[in-house]
Amino acid sequence: MHNNELELLMPELRPEAGLRLQKLLPLMADAGLDAMLLASNANVFYMAGRFFRGYVYVDKSGKMIFFLIRPNCFRTDGKEVVSIRKPEQIPDALAEIGIPMPKSVGLEMESLSYSDVERLKKVFAGSDVGNASQVMKICRMTKTPYELKLMRDDGEHQMAAYNKITRLYRRDMTDVEMQVEIERVLRLEGNLGFLRTAGNLMEINLGSVICGDNADAPSPYEFAMGGTGVSPALPCGANGEIMKPGQTVMIDMNGCFNGWQTDMTRVWTIGEVPESAHAAHECSRRILRELEKMAVPGVEVRELYERAHEIVEEEGLEKYFMGHRQQAAFIGHGVGIELNEAPAITPKCKVLLQADMTLAIEPKFVIPGVGAVGVENTYVVTPDGLTNLTPFPEELTDLL
Amino acid sequence: MHNNELELLMPELRPEAGLRLQKLLPLMADAGLDAMLLASNANVFYMAGRFFRGYVYVDKSGKMIFFLIRPNCFRTDGKEVVSIRKPEQIPDALAEIGIPMPKSVGLEMESLSYSDVERLKKVFAGSDVGNASQVMKICRMTKTPYELKLMRDDGEHQMAAYNKITRLYRRDMTDVEMQVEIERVLRLEGNLGFLRTAGNLMEINLGSVICGDNADAPSPYEFAMGGTGVSPALPCGANGEIMKPGQTVMIDMNGCFNGWQTDMTRVWTIGEVPESAHAAHECSRRILRELEKMAVPGVEVRELYERAHEIVEEEGLEKYFMGHRQQAAFIGHGVGIELNEAPAITPKCKVLLQADMTLAIEPKFVIPGVGAVGVENTYVVTPDGLTNLTPFPEELTDLL
Repeated sequence: MHNNELELLMPELRPEAGLRLQKLLPLMADAGLDAMLLASNANVFYMAGRFFRGYVYVDKSGKMIFFLIRPNCFRTDGKEVVSIRKPEQIPDALAEIGIPMPKSVGLEMESLSYSDVERLKKVFAGSDVGNASQVMKICRMTKTPYELKLMRDDGEHQMAAYNKITRLYRRDMTDVEMQVEIERVLRLEGNLGFLRTAGNLMEINLGSVICGDNADAPSPYEFAMGGTGVSPALPCGANGEIMKPGQTVMIDMNGCFNGWQTDMTRVWTIGEVPESAHAAHECSRRILRELEKMAVPGVEVRELYERAHEIVEEEGLEKYFMGHRQQAAFIGHGVGIELNEAPAITPKCKVLLQADMTLAIEPKFVIPGVGAVGVENTYVVTPDGLTNLTPFPEELTDLL
Repeated sequence: MHNNELELLMPELRPEAGLRLQKLLPLMADAGLDAMLLASNANVFYMAGRFFRGYVYVDKSGKMIFFLIRPNCFRTDGKEVVSIRKPEQIPDALAEIGIPMPKSVGLEMESLSYSDVERLKKVFAGSDVGNASQVMKICRMTKTPYELKLMRDDGEHQMAAYNKITRLYRRDMTDVEMQVEIERVLRLEGNLGFLRTAGNLMEINLGSVICGDNADAPSPYEFAMGGTGVSPALPCGANGEIMKPGQTVMIDMNGCFNGWQTDMTRVWTIGEVPESAHAAHECSRRILRELEKMAVPGVEVRELYERAHEIVEEEGLEKYFMGHRQQAAFIGHGVGIELNEAPAITPKCKVLLQADMTLAIEPKFVIPGVGAVGVENTYVVTPDGLTNLTPFPEELTDLL
């Protein structure tokens, strides 16, 4: 970065960009889009291999132009990387390169603000406008081998940090103090310290540590679990109370080390906990073992939810499944650059599983008076079922 | 939170809500809005005193209705707090309470996605639609006494954490390791661990620690300073290099302890640094001392920028002001619930200063080969000039 060239789409990333375009172009064609103009942080990073402020223009032939607003001090080539001050300069810049304005252009209607999209619609006044958010969501749902490698690396780092958790506990510690020590261990392991989520339905610090009855405090966010947090400004997760014997401690902390992320939850206990907590925890593991086998390409995502729910019913645990006072109607989600990617594993989702999808599956239970139990792993879909990117011991571990 | 009522607009917050409405209603009238429907995280928190998923409806008489989607397990009164599953239920709910549909309604066009606003426009199909984002931005620019108290508390906590920084340094530490230890101290001091910014022009972990030449790496974000970060996914701040003698370390870490925040930067040195760094640092302090006196109600914001720039020219430091390879055209910004509130202190901003505005002012310099210097404080505008909420020693302090 200390030279005068912006290292955009570094040579080693060119084949990777090719693979991503290979997935993207048929999806653009399906959506009737001749081109897309992408500006959201996640999609700019996905298409360019690094984040910058500006726009990525992709046309149906697979040509990409990077319109760069900031940084503004790099040499640009005026062909592939074009420096602009504002999006209104894009039509002239395209003309200069010899690219005609597209008949139809996709804009990110689900991640850009209303004002931003209205402004871009004027820039493309002669073009039909479509929704690029959906196209990108589907494209990013399956991962390339390079992305899978990054996510495997994330899993390794996340497991290395989780491996230190037991040693971090001290008697009469609060849940917040425990979380802070885990944050430190994650950060020293290389965690970026930033949890990228899509949309405005989630806000969190570096993850969630919930202990005892705090697990039953309902969340305003779309997280599986709740917790009051320590402030009405961020009502989520650890609440600052001392962790007490007889409680479970559910730890679901950020696994982002390279821009992609894994999502993993494990549960610790403080001394003895009731048999009901053990039973529900084992039920979660039973669900994972079954889904690991049945989740092969071609299966509808909702079937995963349904099978999980059947097992929960068999064991009579419906009242505690995915929350108690407030229950969430999903058991997992896609994961990648953003924590909450497609598909959401809900009773309604008819998306077909495909090889190289990455899914975080998190069948969890809230046992009133005790806390939350259950396991979350991040998996890759393969023809033989799920491969676990977070193969870390799943048993309840005592902190005392 | 363990009862069955949602503590929304707690009794002790009612007078506070009254004060906020007193500012808001004339601004709504100026914008020609009969009502507003707010859904962004920051504005819901501002109007309701706690964050929830749903909508705050405010009409021109000052009546507020809280439409609650999540949490969904609280008793609601059907009059002031109304439970809904989706925004399409709002018109019927309003009719039931006896509130006619507004002739004009403000929506947050700068913070909600295009899809979300389009959906809400259909809900209010018979109403003219205006931009609530601007109205809320102006309303939140000045703070109530209660907000100022919270921000003073933030400043106390932030200073208590900064007071420990010198002791955190160990020889041959990387900038990331230093930042992680500061994060821990901040979090144990009560920091929420979440930096709320407006728009999508900023992404960061818990703040910025930049050392040596990394200060000269240009940012893709709208931050005053740069830094490459450790990943192209989050190119911002500390880059993982060992901090070396002769460098400065600029520390600009999150001051959010209660939903509001203070913004403060101080600089440490590693042994001797060149005289040019000392001179630029003193120039920053001279700018702050002058602005502290001249920033009284009625002054145009751009005058602050102009005066700062004059001083920089007098001292011949233009080349290093607000960056070196890439320079930012501002010296500060409003601050409150979000880090980047109005007004931005730019050469173009004609907003008039008002009493009880809160401003972070950060005249900074990048000295090539050495690092960044300068001071940032968070201030309140008063008739007598600026009151400093972060009165922490400003001198360069040696870490060795």
